[in-house]
Amino acid sequence: MAQEEGQNGGAEKTVVEVSFKSVKPQLFVEAPKATDAIQFYKTAFGAVETCRSTQPKRKADQELPHIVSAVLQLAGSTFIVADLSDDSSSTKGGGAGFAMCLETEDLKAAVAKAVAAGAVSESEIVEVEGACCCAERVTKVKDPYGFVWQFCSPSNKCGANVEA
Amino acid sequence: MAQEEGQNGGAEKTVVEVSFKSVKPQLFVEAPKATDAIQFYKTAFGAVETCRSTQPKRKADQELPHIVSAVLQLAGSTFIVADLSDDSSSTKGGGAGFAMCLETEDLKAAVAKAVAAGAVSESEIVEVEGACCCAERVTKVKDPYGFVWQFCSPSNKCGANVEA
Repeated sequence: MAQEEGQNGGAEKTVVEVSFKSVKPQLFVEAPKATDAIQFYKTAFGAVETCRSTQPKRKADQELPHIVSAVLQLAGSTFIVADLSDDSSSTKGGGAGFAMCLETEDLKAAVAKAVAAGAVSESEIVEVEGACCCAERVTKVKDPYGFVWQFCSPSNKCGANVEA
Repeated sequence: MAQEEGQNGGAEKTVVEVSFKSVKPQLFVEAPKATDAIQFYKTAFGAVETCRSTQPKRKADQELPHIVSAVLQLAGSTFIVADLSDDSSSTKGGGAGFAMCLETEDLKAAVAKAVAAGAVSESEIVEVEGACCCAERVTKVKDPYGFVWQFCSPSNKCGANVEA
């Protein structure tokens, strides 16, 4: 199944070279509970928050800003916590959802290689301010085993609105 | 909610110190497809497998050994792929499930601290050969947001039955 020449009848025999800068699990929490979840991961596990991207309140009845992504460091690893939005790139699951984020310069090649190996493209490349954390462009595929992999452009800046 | 003194009426005011050696996302795949999934992650993303723990076939009609855990390296990070078993410690979700594995010397203290912060204990500490990868003892909690965190003892050895 997972041959390098892909499943498209062997038309594409070239092995695409794609390099990834990072891979980070992203936990989607039912909005607006990401703030609480981040506090829980700090208290329960000693995680340290290094970046938070938010959207301002969009409705008068929203008390908390929407957390597009917050980066937590724990034991030398990084994971991302986000409020689930309608267009979140996630596998539905425990919590509100889950995705693996892969940071790469070449989103198009990354998607092509994954699709050639058997994944299904789930979205065009879109601009999402603050996604995954602080990438500018993101896209996603679903692998043959049901997991969502989100490819994002490298994070160059971060609106480090981090609460201690 | 996630105060350090916990939710048990303030009876436990001591902050427990727990240190973690690693945190790794674990992807559970419908058995026996973990072998295919690992090959997919190698082909699609260039992941490198560094450890595989298996159980021998337990039934005559099982063609593949059960993958208790396989460790994949990608972009400086580590993730684990496993066949889902009846007793797998996972959040049901995309794929067959998902958990975050935290490696620590002191499972009991880790559970106590997480539960004080609002998590729910999901199992006793049990011995699972080859879990998470090559830990000897594991236990798990579910956090208030629905995610499963599996605590495992440090991996001291690995029956590195890795296919190239």
